[in-house]
Amino acid sequence: MHIENKKIGYFGEPGSHTENAAKGFFEQKANGGFKIDYMSFATITLLLEALLKKQIDKAVLPIENSIEGVVTLSIDELINGSGIKIENEVIVEIRHHLISVGSIKEVRKVISHPQALAQCSKFIQNLHLPLAEDRIIAAISTSAAVKEVAKRNDPKIAAIGSESALRIYKRDNCELEILAKNIQDEETNKTRFFVLGHENNPWTGKDKTSIIFGTEDKCGSLVDVLLVFKVLGINMMQISSRPSKKKLGEYIFWVDIDGHREEKTIQVAIGQIAKITTFLKILGSYPKAE
Amino acid sequence: MHIENKKIGYFGEPGSHTENAAKGFFEQKANGGFKIDYMSFATITLLLEALLKKQIDKAVLPIENSIEGVVTLSIDELINGSGIKIENEVIVEIRHHLISVGSIKEVRKVISHPQALAQCSKFIQNLHLPLAEDRIIAAISTSAAVKEVAKRNDPKIAAIGSESALRIYKRDNCELEILAKNIQDEETNKTRFFVLGHENNPWTGKDKTSIIFGTEDKCGSLVDVLLVFKVLGINMMQISSRPSKKKLGEYIFWVDIDGHREEKTIQVAIGQIAKITTFLKILGSYPKAE
Repeated sequence: MHIENKKIGYFGEPGSHTENAAKGFFEQKANGGFKIDYMSFATITLLLEALLKKQIDKAVLPIENSIEGVVTLSIDELINGSGIKIENEVIVEIRHHLISVGSIKEVRKVISHPQALAQCSKFIQNLHLPLAEDRIIAAISTSAAVKEVAKRNDPKIAAIGSESALRIYKRDNCELEILAKNIQDEETNKTRFFVLGHENNPWTGKDKTSIIFGTEDKCGSLVDVLLVFKVLGINMMQISSRPSKKKLGEYIFWVDIDGHREEKTIQVAIGQIAKITTFLKILGSYPKAE
Repeated sequence: MHIENKKIGYFGEPGSHTENAAKGFFEQKANGGFKIDYMSFATITLLLEALLKKQIDKAVLPIENSIEGVVTLSIDELINGSGIKIENEVIVEIRHHLISVGSIKEVRKVISHPQALAQCSKFIQNLHLPLAEDRIIAAISTSAAVKEVAKRNDPKIAAIGSESALRIYKRDNCELEILAKNIQDEETNKTRFFVLGHENNPWTGKDKTSIIFGTEDKCGSLVDVLLVFKVLGINMMQISSRPSKKKLGEYIFWVDIDGHREEKTIQVAIGQIAKITTFLKILGSYPKAE
Protein backbone atom coordinates (compact mmCIF):
# COMPACT_ATOMS: atom_id res chain seq x y z
CA MET A 1 0.00 0.00 0.00
CA HIS A 2 1.50 3.35 -1.05
CA ILE A 3 0.68 6.37 1.03
CA GLU A 4 1.71 9.44 -0.96
CA ASN A 5 0.06 12.71 -0.08
CA LYS A 6 -2.91 10.78 1.18
CA LYS A 7 -5.89 12.45 2.82
CA ILE A 8 -6.99 10.52 5.88
CA GLY A 9 -10.35 11.41 7.44
CA TYR A 10 -11.22 10.35 10.96
CA PHE A 11 -14.24 10.61 13.21
CA GLY A 12 -13.85 12.95 16.17
CA GLU A 13 -11.65 15.79 17.27
CA PRO A 14 -7.87 16.14 17.24
CA GLY A 15 -6.61 14.27 20.30
CA SER A 16 -9.42 11.71 20.14
CA HIS A 17 -8.74 7.98 20.34
CA THR A 18 -9.73 7.62 16.71
CA GLU A 19 -7.15 10.20 15.63
CA ASN A 20 -4.58 8.28 17.70
CA ALA A 21 -5.52 5.04 15.98
CA ALA A 22 -5.35 6.69 12.54
CA LYS A 23 -1.96 8.27 13.18
CA GLY A 24 -0.50 5.14 14.74
CA PHE A 25 -1.58 3.10 11.75
CA PHE A 26 -0.69 5.42 8.87
CA GLU A 27 2.56 6.72 10.27
CA GLN A 28 3.80 3.14 10.51
CA LYS A 29 2.59 2.47 6.94
CA ALA A 30 4.12 5.66 5.58
CA ASN A 31 7.33 5.01 7.48
CA GLY A 32 8.45 8.64 7.04
CA GLY A 33 9.04 10.28 3.66
CA PHE A 34 5.39 10.50 2.68
CA LYS A 35 3.02 13.35 3.40
CA ILE A 36 -0.26 12.56 5.12
CA ASP A 37 -3.06 15.06 5.70
CA TYR A 38 -5.41 14.25 8.54
CA MET A 39 -8.92 15.67 8.55
CA SER A 40 -11.28 15.63 11.50
CA PHE A 41 -15.01 14.90 10.91
CA ALA A 42 -17.68 15.71 13.48
CA THR A 43 -20.04 12.92 12.43
CA ILE A 44 -19.79 9.47 10.85
CA THR A 45 -22.19 10.58 8.14
CA LEU A 46 -20.00 13.48 7.06
CA LEU A 47 -16.91 11.25 7.17
CA LEU A 48 -18.45 8.60 4.92
CA GLU A 49 -19.88 11.21 2.55
CA ALA A 50 -16.38 12.63 2.09
CA LEU A 51 -15.05 9.13 1.39
CA LEU A 52 -17.80 8.41 -1.14
CA LYS A 53 -17.09 11.71 -2.93
CA LYS A 54 -13.35 10.85 -2.80
CA GLN A 55 -12.57 14.08 -0.95
CA ILE A 56 -10.55 11.82 1.32
CA ASP A 57 -8.69 8.60 0.48
CA LYS A 58 -9.36 6.68 3.68
CA ALA A 59 -11.75 6.97 6.59
CA VAL A 60 -10.96 5.77 10.12
CA LEU A 61 -13.75 5.10 12.58
CA PRO A 62 -14.31 3.14 15.78
CA ILE A 63 -16.30 -0.08 15.56
CA GLU A 64 -16.52 -1.90 18.84
CA ASN A 65 -16.37 -1.09 22.53
CA SER A 66 -15.69 2.52 21.82
CA ILE A 67 -16.22 5.49 24.04
CA GLU A 68 -16.98 7.36 20.87
CA GLY A 69 -20.07 5.17 20.70
CA VAL A 70 -20.10 3.77 17.19
CA VAL A 71 -21.58 0.36 16.60
CA THR A 72 -21.17 -1.98 13.67
CA LEU A 73 -24.83 -1.49 12.90
CA SER A 74 -24.33 2.10 11.84
CA ILE A 75 -21.77 1.33 9.20
CA ASP A 76 -22.75 -1.96 7.59
CA GLU A 77 -25.68 -0.36 5.82
CA LEU A 78 -23.50 2.50 4.65
CA ILE A 79 -20.83 0.18 3.32
CA ASN A 80 -23.32 -2.14 1.67
CA GLY A 81 -23.55 -1.38 -2.02
CA SER A 82 -21.46 1.77 -1.94
CA GLY A 83 -18.19 0.30 -3.21
CA ILE A 84 -16.49 1.19 0.07
CA LYS A 85 -14.33 -1.59 1.48
CA ILE A 86 -12.83 -2.40 4.84
CA GLU A 87 -9.12 -2.15 4.09
CA ASN A 88 -7.69 -2.59 7.56
CA GLU A 89 -8.54 -3.05 11.20
CA VAL A 90 -6.62 -1.33 13.97
CA ILE A 91 -6.86 -2.40 17.59
CA VAL A 92 -5.84 0.13 20.20
CA GLU A 93 -5.80 -0.16 23.96
CA ILE A 94 -7.66 2.80 25.40
CA ARG A 95 -6.13 4.33 28.51
CA HIS A 96 -7.89 7.05 30.47
CA HIS A 97 -5.90 9.49 32.58
CA LEU A 98 -6.88 12.18 35.06
CA ILE A 99 -5.46 15.43 33.71
CA SER A 100 -5.29 18.84 35.35
CA VAL A 101 -3.00 21.71 36.32
CA GLY A 102 -2.72 21.09 40.09
CA SER A 103 -2.54 18.07 42.39
CA ILE A 104 -5.11 15.28 42.76
CA LYS A 105 -6.11 16.57 46.23
CA GLU A 106 -7.25 19.88 44.77
CA VAL A 107 -9.69 18.31 42.30
CA ARG A 108 -13.33 19.18 43.02
CA LYS A 109 -14.89 18.56 39.60
CA VAL A 110 -14.28 16.06 36.81
CA ILE A 111 -15.11 16.68 33.16
CA SER A 112 -15.19 14.17 30.29
CA HIS A 113 -17.32 12.36 27.71
CA PRO A 114 -20.18 10.58 29.57
CA GLN A 115 -18.95 7.17 28.39
CA ALA A 116 -15.42 7.85 29.69
CA LEU A 117 -16.90 9.04 32.99
CA ALA A 118 -18.85 5.77 33.16
CA GLN A 119 -15.74 3.73 32.38
CA CYS A 120 -13.91 5.40 35.28
CA SER A 121 -16.79 5.40 37.75
CA LYS A 122 -14.94 3.50 40.50
CA PHE A 123 -12.00 5.89 40.33
CA ILE A 124 -14.30 8.91 40.46
CA GLN A 125 -16.14 7.45 43.46
CA ASN A 126 -12.83 7.08 45.27
CA LEU A 127 -11.98 10.74 44.65
CA HIS A 128 -14.73 11.59 47.19
CA LEU A 129 -15.63 14.80 45.37
CA PRO A 130 -17.67 17.21 47.49
CA LEU A 131 -21.39 16.83 46.80
CA ALA A 132 -22.30 19.52 44.31
CA GLU A 133 -24.58 19.40 41.33
CA ASP A 134 -21.80 20.13 38.86
CA ARG A 135 -19.07 17.88 40.26
CA ILE A 136 -19.39 15.68 37.17
CA ILE A 137 -19.42 17.68 33.93
CA ALA A 138 -20.06 16.28 30.46
CA ALA A 139 -17.92 17.10 27.45
CA ILE A 140 -18.54 16.36 23.79
CA SER A 141 -15.39 14.19 23.72
CA THR A 142 -12.43 13.32 25.94
CA SER A 143 -10.21 15.70 23.98
CA ALA A 144 -12.74 18.53 24.36
CA ALA A 145 -12.57 17.88 28.12
CA VAL A 146 -8.79 18.21 28.16
CA LYS A 147 -9.05 21.38 26.05
CA GLU A 148 -11.53 22.88 28.52
CA VAL A 149 -9.32 22.08 31.53
CA ALA A 150 -6.31 23.64 29.76
CA LYS A 151 -8.39 26.74 29.05
CA ARG A 152 -9.69 27.11 32.61
CA ASN A 153 -6.24 26.50 34.11
CA ASP A 154 -7.90 25.79 37.47
CA PRO A 155 -6.61 22.98 39.76
CA LYS A 156 -10.18 22.37 41.00
CA ILE A 157 -11.27 20.91 37.65
CA ALA A 158 -9.73 17.80 36.06
CA ALA A 159 -10.38 16.07 32.74
CA ILE A 160 -10.45 12.38 31.92
CA GLY A 161 -8.67 12.03 28.61
CA SER A 162 -5.77 10.68 26.60
CA GLU A 163 -2.07 11.47 26.64
CA SER A 164 -2.24 12.77 23.07
CA ALA A 165 -4.95 15.28 24.03
CA LEU A 166 -2.66 16.42 26.84
CA ARG A 167 0.16 16.95 24.33
CA ILE A 168 -2.11 18.94 22.02
CA TYR A 169 -3.55 21.26 24.67
CA LYS A 170 -0.55 21.68 26.96
CA ARG A 171 0.82 25.15 26.35
CA ASP A 172 3.93 26.82 27.74
CA ASN A 173 2.08 28.83 30.36
CA CYS A 174 0.03 25.88 31.53
CA GLU A 175 1.07 23.13 33.97
CA LEU A 176 -1.30 20.53 32.48
CA GLU A 177 -0.22 17.07 33.65
CA ILE A 178 -1.38 13.52 34.23
CA LEU A 179 -2.41 13.33 37.90
CA ALA A 180 -3.40 9.65 37.74
CA LYS A 181 -2.70 7.08 35.02
CA ASN A 182 -4.92 4.26 33.71
CA ILE A 183 -7.92 5.11 35.82
CA GLN A 184 -10.47 3.03 33.86
CA ASP A 185 -12.34 0.39 35.90
CA GLU A 186 -11.47 -2.42 33.51
CA GLU A 187 -7.77 -3.02 33.12
CA THR A 188 -7.95 -3.75 29.41
CA ASN A 189 -10.17 -1.63 27.26
CA LYS A 190 -9.43 -2.43 23.65
CA THR A 191 -11.21 -0.62 20.86
CA ARG A 192 -11.35 -1.81 17.28
CA PHE A 193 -11.18 0.69 14.44
CA PHE A 194 -11.73 0.18 10.72
CA VAL A 195 -9.84 1.87 7.92
CA LEU A 196 -12.29 2.22 5.02
CA GLY A 197 -11.33 2.97 1.44
CA HIS A 198 -11.95 2.13 -2.19
CA GLU A 199 -9.30 -0.58 -2.64
CA ASN A 200 -9.15 -4.31 -2.08
CA ASN A 201 -6.36 -5.07 0.33
CA PRO A 202 -4.05 -7.69 -1.25
CA TRP A 203 -3.38 -11.12 0.27
CA THR A 204 -0.88 -11.05 3.13
CA GLY A 205 -1.17 -14.61 4.45
CA LYS A 206 -2.71 -13.57 7.77
CA ASP A 207 -5.98 -12.04 6.68
CA LYS A 208 -9.58 -12.07 7.75
CA THR A 209 -12.68 -11.37 5.68
CA SER A 210 -15.84 -9.62 6.86
CA ILE A 211 -19.08 -10.65 5.19
CA ILE A 212 -22.72 -9.82 5.77
CA PHE A 213 -25.56 -12.01 4.61
CA GLY A 214 -29.29 -12.39 5.12
CA THR A 215 -31.29 -15.51 5.81
CA GLU A 216 -34.99 -16.11 5.58
CA ASP A 217 -36.90 -18.19 8.10
CA LYS A 218 -35.32 -16.41 11.06
CA CYS A 219 -32.03 -17.86 12.27
CA GLY A 220 -32.66 -21.48 11.21
CA SER A 221 -30.69 -21.44 7.97
CA LEU A 222 -27.65 -20.04 9.75
CA VAL A 223 -26.64 -23.63 10.56
CA ASP A 224 -26.31 -24.42 6.85
CA VAL A 225 -24.00 -21.43 6.38
CA LEU A 226 -21.83 -22.39 9.34
CA LEU A 227 -21.67 -25.99 8.10
CA VAL A 228 -20.10 -24.72 4.87
CA PHE A 229 -17.36 -23.05 6.93
CA LYS A 230 -16.91 -26.14 9.09
CA VAL A 231 -16.71 -28.60 6.18
CA LEU A 232 -14.18 -26.38 4.39
CA GLY A 233 -12.14 -25.90 7.57
CA ILE A 234 -12.67 -22.14 7.66
CA ASN A 235 -12.47 -20.66 11.13
CA MET A 236 -15.12 -18.13 12.09
CA MET A 237 -13.78 -15.38 14.31
CA GLN A 238 -16.84 -13.33 15.09
CA ILE A 239 -20.59 -13.50 14.51
CA SER A 240 -23.41 -11.11 15.30
CA SER A 241 -27.00 -10.94 14.21
CA ARG A 242 -29.39 -8.08 13.85
CA PRO A 243 -32.97 -7.92 12.64
CA SER A 244 -33.24 -6.71 9.04
CA LYS A 245 -34.85 -3.31 8.78
CA LYS A 246 -36.30 -4.18 5.40
CA LYS A 247 -38.30 -7.30 6.07
CA LEU A 248 -39.79 -8.73 9.22
CA GLY A 249 -38.50 -12.20 10.03
CA GLU A 250 -35.38 -11.71 7.92
CA TYR A 251 -32.10 -11.71 9.81
CA ILE A 252 -28.78 -10.21 8.84
CA PHE A 253 -25.50 -11.65 10.08
CA TRP A 254 -22.07 -10.06 10.24
CA VAL A 255 -19.38 -12.75 10.23
CA ASP A 256 -15.58 -12.49 10.24
CA ILE A 257 -13.80 -15.52 8.81
CA ASP A 258 -10.15 -16.50 8.76
CA GLY A 259 -8.66 -16.04 5.27
CA HIS A 260 -8.55 -13.72 2.27
CA ARG A 261 -11.26 -13.39 -0.38
CA GLU A 262 -8.76 -14.45 -3.06
CA GLU A 263 -8.01 -17.78 -1.35
CA LYS A 264 -9.57 -20.78 -3.10
CA THR A 265 -11.39 -22.19 -0.03
CA ILE A 266 -12.85 -18.79 0.81
CA GLN A 267 -14.07 -18.40 -2.79
CA VAL A 268 -15.68 -21.86 -2.72
CA ALA A 269 -17.33 -21.08 0.62
CA ILE A 270 -18.67 -17.72 -0.60
CA GLY A 271 -20.03 -19.39 -3.74
CA GLN A 272 -21.86 -22.04 -1.70
CA ILE A 273 -23.20 -19.58 0.84
CA ALA A 274 -24.51 -17.24 -1.85
CA LYS A 275 -26.86 -20.06 -2.89
CA ILE A 276 -28.45 -20.44 0.55
CA THR A 277 -28.74 -16.82 1.67
CA THR A 278 -31.09 -14.02 0.61
CA PHE A 279 -28.10 -11.74 -0.02
CA LEU A 280 -24.39 -11.81 0.57
CA LYS A 281 -21.81 -9.07 0.49
CA ILE A 282 -18.06 -9.13 1.12
CA LEU A 283 -17.19 -6.01 3.10
CA GLY A 284 -13.45 -6.54 2.75
CA SER A 285 -10.40 -8.71 3.38
CA TYR A 286 -7.70 -7.23 5.57
CA PRO A 287 -4.78 -8.27 7.78
CA LYS A 288 -5.69 -9.48 11.26
CA ALA A 289 -4.68 -6.91 13.85
CA GLU A 290 -4.42 -9.53 16.61
CA MET B 1 -45.96 -11.06 39.09
CA HIS B 2 -47.04 -9.10 42.15
CA ILE B 3 -45.67 -5.60 42.53
CA GLU B 4 -46.45 -4.46 46.06
CA ASN B 5 -44.36 -1.65 47.48
CA LYS B 6 -41.59 -2.66 45.12
CA LYS B 7 -38.36 -0.71 44.84
CA ILE B 8 -37.36 -0.29 41.22
CA GLY B 9 -33.86 0.95 40.46
CA TYR B 10 -32.95 2.34 37.07
CA PHE B 11 -29.82 3.62 35.38
CA GLY B 12 -29.76 7.33 34.71
CA GLU B 13 -31.50 10.46 35.87
CA PRO B 14 -35.20 11.19 36.30
CA GLY B 15 -36.56 11.98 32.84
CA SER B 16 -34.12 9.60 31.13
CA HIS B 17 -35.27 7.05 28.57
CA THR B 18 -34.50 4.26 31.03
CA GLU B 19 -36.78 5.82 33.65
CA ASN B 20 -39.47 6.09 30.97
CA ALA B 21 -39.06 2.42 30.11
CA ALA B 22 -39.17 1.43 33.79
CA LYS B 23 -42.28 3.48 34.52
CA GLY B 24 -44.07 2.36 31.35
CA PHE B 25 -43.43 -1.26 32.22
CA PHE B 26 -44.14 -1.28 35.97
CA GLU B 27 -47.12 1.02 35.94
CA GLN B 28 -48.79 -1.33 33.48
CA LYS B 29 -47.86 -4.33 35.67
CA ALA B 30 -49.03 -2.63 38.86
CA ASN B 31 -52.19 -1.45 37.16
CA GLY B 32 -52.82 1.12 39.94
CA GLY B 33 -53.35 0.21 43.57
CA PHE B 34 -49.75 -0.75 44.25
CA LYS B 35 -47.01 1.53 45.45
CA ILE B 36 -43.78 1.61 43.47
CA ASP B 37 -40.67 3.50 44.53
CA TYR B 38 -38.30 4.43 41.74
CA MET B 39 -34.65 5.03 42.49
CA SER B 40 -32.17 6.62 40.11
CA PHE B 41 -28.60 5.21 39.88
CA ALA B 42 -25.72 7.13 38.34
CA THR B 43 -23.81 4.04 37.18
CA ILE B 44 -24.62 0.47 36.15
CA THR B 45 -22.20 -0.80 38.79
CA LEU B 46 -24.05 0.97 41.63
CA LEU B 47 -27.39 -0.22 40.23
CA LEU B 48 -26.34 -3.86 40.12
CA GLU B 49 -24.69 -3.66 43.54
CA ALA B 50 -27.97 -2.43 45.00
CA LEU B 51 -29.81 -5.31 43.32
CA LEU B 52 -27.30 -7.87 44.62
CA LYS B 53 -27.66 -6.49 48.17
CA LYS B 54 -31.46 -6.55 47.69
CA GLN B 55 -31.71 -2.83 48.43
CA ILE B 56 -33.91 -2.77 45.33
CA ASP B 57 -36.21 -5.48 43.97
CA LYS B 58 -35.66 -4.90 40.27
CA ALA B 59 -33.09 -3.09 38.14
CA VAL B 60 -33.88 -1.58 34.74
CA LEU B 61 -31.08 -0.85 32.29
CA PRO B 62 -30.62 -0.31 28.56
CA ILE B 63 -29.08 -3.11 26.53
CA GLU B 64 -28.93 -2.34 22.85
CA ASN B 65 -28.79 0.70 20.61
CA SER B 66 -29.04 3.00 23.53
CA ILE B 67 -28.02 6.59 23.77
CA GLU B 68 -27.14 5.82 27.36
CA GLY B 69 -24.41 3.66 25.89
CA VAL B 70 -24.74 0.33 27.65
CA VAL B 71 -23.76 -2.81 25.81
CA THR B 72 -24.62 -6.41 26.53
CA LEU B 73 -20.97 -7.04 27.26
CA SER B 74 -21.03 -4.98 30.40
CA ILE B 75 -23.82 -6.94 32.00
CA ASP B 76 -23.34 -10.57 31.06
CA GLU B 77 -20.32 -10.90 33.29
CA LEU B 78 -22.13 -9.23 36.13
CA ILE B 79 -25.16 -11.47 35.77
CA ASN B 80 -23.09 -14.63 35.37
CA GLY B 81 -22.92 -16.49 38.65
CA SER B 82 -24.59 -13.80 40.75
CA GLY B 83 -28.09 -15.30 40.89
CA ILE B 84 -29.49 -12.28 39.07
CA LYS B 85 -31.95 -13.15 36.29
CA ILE B 86 -33.35 -11.36 33.30
CA GLU B 87 -37.04 -11.17 34.21
CA ASN B 88 -38.34 -9.04 31.36
CA GLU B 89 -37.38 -7.13 28.27
CA VAL B 90 -38.91 -3.78 27.39
CA ILE B 91 -38.63 -2.24 23.94
CA VAL B 92 -39.19 1.49 23.69
CA GLU B 93 -39.08 3.75 20.67
CA ILE B 94 -36.76 6.66 21.44
CA ARG B 95 -37.93 10.04 20.17
CA HIS B 96 -35.72 13.10 20.39
CA HIS B 97 -37.25 16.57 20.50
CA LEU B 98 -35.77 20.06 20.34
CA ILE B 99 -36.81 21.78 23.57
CA SER B 100 -36.45 25.41 24.59
CA VAL B 101 -38.26 28.48 25.86
CA GLY B 102 -38.41 30.54 22.64
CA SER B 103 -38.88 29.85 18.94
CA ILE B 104 -36.72 27.67 16.71
CA LYS B 105 -35.36 30.78 14.91
CA GLU B 106 -33.86 32.11 18.12
CA VAL B 107 -31.78 28.98 18.81
CA ARG B 108 -28.01 29.61 18.67
CA LYS B 109 -26.74 26.67 20.77
CA VAL B 110 -27.83 23.07 21.23
CA ILE B 111 -27.13 21.01 24.33
CA SER B 112 -27.53 17.25 24.83
CA HIS B 113 -25.82 13.92 25.47
CA PRO B 114 -23.13 13.43 22.76
CA GLN B 115 -24.87 10.31 21.47
CA ALA B 116 -28.20 12.14 21.12
CA LEU B 117 -26.39 15.00 19.35
CA ALA B 118 -24.91 12.42 16.97
CA GLN B 119 -28.31 10.81 16.37
CA CYS B 120 -29.74 14.22 15.38
CA SER B 121 -26.74 15.45 13.38
CA LYS B 122 -28.67 16.11 10.15
CA PHE B 123 -31.28 18.16 11.99
CA ILE B 124 -28.60 20.18 13.78
CA GLN B 125 -26.80 20.82 10.47
CA ASN B 126 -30.05 22.18 9.03
CA LEU B 127 -30.40 24.61 11.94
CA HIS B 128 -27.43 26.52 10.48
CA LEU B 129 -26.23 27.59 13.90
CA PRO B 130 -23.75 30.50 13.80
CA LEU B 131 -20.18 29.23 13.89
CA ALA B 132 -19.04 29.47 17.49
CA GLU B 133 -16.97 27.11 19.53
CA ASP B 134 -19.73 26.40 22.00
CA ARG B 135 -22.66 26.03 19.62
CA ILE B 136 -22.83 22.32 20.46
CA ILE B 137 -22.68 21.67 24.21
CA ALA B 138 -22.43 18.26 25.85
CA ALA B 139 -24.60 17.19 28.76
CA ILE B 140 -24.28 14.15 30.98
CA SER B 141 -27.70 12.91 29.77
CA THR B 142 -30.62 14.15 27.68
CA SER B 143 -32.59 14.93 30.84
CA ALA B 144 -29.68 16.93 32.29
CA ALA B 145 -29.73 18.94 29.04
CA VAL B 146 -33.44 19.74 29.40
CA LYS B 147 -32.88 20.67 33.07
CA GLU B 148 -30.08 23.06 32.07
CA VAL B 149 -32.22 24.75 29.40
CA ALA B 150 -35.07 25.16 31.90
CA LYS B 151 -32.64 26.69 34.39
CA ARG B 152 -31.11 29.12 31.88
CA ASN B 153 -34.52 30.14 30.53
CA ASP B 154 -32.80 31.60 27.45
CA PRO B 155 -34.33 31.20 23.95
CA LYS B 156 -30.82 31.08 22.45
CA ILE B 157 -30.12 27.64 23.94
CA ALA B 158 -32.14 24.51 23.16
CA ALA B 159 -31.91 20.95 24.48
CA ILE B 160 -32.38 17.66 22.68
CA GLY B 161 -34.38 15.48 25.02
CA SER B 162 -37.54 13.56 25.78
CA GLU B 163 -41.08 14.67 26.46
CA SER B 164 -40.93 13.27 29.98
CA ALA B 165 -37.85 15.38 30.78
CA LEU B 166 -39.82 18.39 29.52
CA ARG B 167 -42.67 17.51 31.91
CA ILE B 168 -40.27 17.16 34.85
CA TYR B 169 -38.41 20.43 34.32
CA LYS B 170 -41.19 22.66 33.02
CA ARG B 171 -42.11 25.03 35.84
CA ASP B 172 -44.89 27.60 36.04
CA ASN B 173 -42.65 30.56 35.28
CA CYS B 174 -40.95 28.84 32.34
CA GLU B 175 -42.23 28.55 28.79
CA LEU B 176 -40.31 25.32 28.07
CA GLU B 177 -41.79 23.69 24.97
CA ILE B 178 -41.09 21.27 22.13
CA LEU B 179 -39.88 23.39 19.19
CA ALA B 180 -39.42 20.43 16.84
CA LYS B 181 -40.61 16.84 17.23
CA ASN B 182 -38.85 13.56 16.26
CA ILE B 183 -35.66 15.17 15.08
CA GLN B 184 -33.53 12.00 15.07
CA ASP B 185 -31.93 11.13 11.70
CA GLU B 186 -33.27 7.56 11.72
CA GLU B 187 -37.03 7.36 11.79
CA THR B 188 -37.13 4.36 14.11
CA ASN B 189 -34.77 4.23 17.01
CA LYS B 190 -35.79 1.37 19.24
CA THR B 191 -33.93 0.64 22.43
CA ARG B 192 -34.12 -2.61 24.35
CA PHE B 193 -34.10 -2.57 28.14
CA PHE B 194 -33.80 -5.47 30.58
CA VAL B 195 -35.60 -5.77 33.90
CA LEU B 196 -33.28 -7.73 36.20
CA GLY B 197 -34.29 -9.38 39.47
CA HIS B 198 -33.98 -12.45 41.62
CA GLU B 199 -36.99 -14.40 40.34
CA ASN B 200 -37.60 -16.80 37.48
CA ASN B 201 -40.34 -15.41 35.31
CA PRO B 202 -43.07 -18.10 34.93
CA TRP B 203 -44.11 -19.58 31.59
CA THR B 204 -46.44 -17.33 29.58
CA GLY B 205 -46.55 -19.19 26.25
CA LYS B 206 -44.72 -16.47 24.34
CA ASP B 207 -41.32 -16.46 26.00
CA LYS B 208 -37.73 -16.26 24.98
CA THR B 209 -34.68 -17.52 26.87
CA SER B 210 -31.25 -15.86 26.95
CA ILE B 211 -28.27 -18.16 27.40
CA ILE B 212 -24.53 -17.66 27.32
CA PHE B 213 -22.06 -20.42 26.65
CA GLY B 214 -18.40 -20.89 25.83
CA THR B 215 -16.80 -23.07 23.20
CA GLU B 216 -13.24 -24.16 22.81
CA ASP B 217 -11.48 -24.29 19.45
CA LYS B 218 -12.73 -20.86 18.44
CA CYS B 219 -16.10 -20.73 16.73
CA GLY B 220 -15.99 -24.21 15.16
CA SER B 221 -18.09 -26.02 17.75
CA LEU B 222 -20.83 -23.41 17.45
CA VAL B 223 -22.27 -25.44 14.56
CA ASP B 224 -22.89 -28.39 16.89
CA VAL B 225 -24.80 -26.15 19.29
CA LEU B 226 -26.92 -24.64 16.52
CA LEU B 227 -27.63 -28.13 15.15
CA VAL B 228 -29.19 -29.06 18.50
CA PHE B 229 -31.55 -26.11 18.15
CA LYS B 230 -32.31 -26.94 14.52
CA VAL B 231 -33.00 -30.67 15.14
CA LEU B 232 -35.30 -29.82 18.07
CA GLY B 233 -37.08 -27.10 16.05
CA ILE B 234 -36.04 -24.30 18.40
CA ASN B 235 -35.86 -20.91 16.73
CA MET B 236 -32.85 -18.75 17.50
CA MET B 237 -33.70 -15.07 17.66
CA GLN B 238 -30.33 -13.45 18.24
CA ILE B 239 -26.67 -14.46 18.39
CA SER B 240 -23.53 -12.54 19.20
CA SER B 241 -20.00 -13.61 19.96
CA ARG B 242 -17.26 -12.04 21.98
CA PRO B 243 -13.77 -13.19 22.85
CA SER B 244 -13.54 -14.65 26.35
CA LYS B 245 -11.49 -12.48 28.68
CA LYS B 246 -10.34 -15.51 30.62
CA LYS B 247 -8.76 -17.68 28.00
CA LEU B 248 -7.30 -16.91 24.60
CA GLY B 249 -9.00 -18.84 21.79
CA GLU B 250 -12.14 -19.41 23.86
CA TYR B 251 -15.27 -17.73 22.58
CA ILE B 252 -18.41 -16.77 24.43
CA PHE B 253 -21.79 -16.61 22.73
CA TRP B 254 -24.95 -14.86 23.81
CA VAL B 255 -27.99 -16.50 22.19
CA ASP B 256 -31.71 -15.77 22.53
CA ILE B 257 -33.96 -18.74 21.74
CA ASP B 258 -37.72 -19.01 21.32
CA GLY B 259 -39.29 -20.73 24.34
CA HIS B 260 -39.24 -20.93 28.14
CA ARG B 261 -36.64 -22.75 30.23
CA GLU B 262 -39.40 -24.94 31.70
CA GLU B 263 -40.50 -26.23 28.31
CA LYS B 264 -39.47 -29.82 27.63
CA THR B 265 -37.69 -29.16 24.30
CA ILE B 266 -35.74 -26.26 25.78
CA GLN B 267 -34.66 -28.45 28.70
CA VAL B 268 -33.55 -31.23 26.35
CA ALA B 269 -31.64 -28.71 24.22
CA ILE B 270 -29.91 -27.15 27.25
CA GLY B 271 -28.97 -30.63 28.50
CA GLN B 272 -27.40 -31.54 25.16
CA ILE B 273 -25.61 -28.23 24.73
CA ALA B 274 -24.14 -28.38 28.24
CA LYS B 275 -22.26 -31.51 27.09
CA ILE B 276 -20.57 -29.78 24.15
CA THR B 277 -19.71 -26.37 25.63
CA THR B 278 -17.06 -25.27 28.13
CA PHE B 279 -19.74 -23.58 30.24
CA LEU B 280 -23.41 -22.76 29.92
CA LYS B 281 -25.60 -20.37 31.87
CA ILE B 282 -29.29 -19.52 31.52
CA LEU B 283 -29.62 -15.77 32.06
CA GLY B 284 -33.41 -15.88 32.18
CA SER B 285 -36.68 -16.70 30.44
CA TYR B 286 -39.03 -13.80 29.87
CA PRO B 287 -41.96 -12.76 27.67
CA LYS B 288 -41.04 -11.51 24.19
CA ALA B 289 -41.58 -7.77 23.93
CA GLU B 290 -42.05 -7.90 20.15
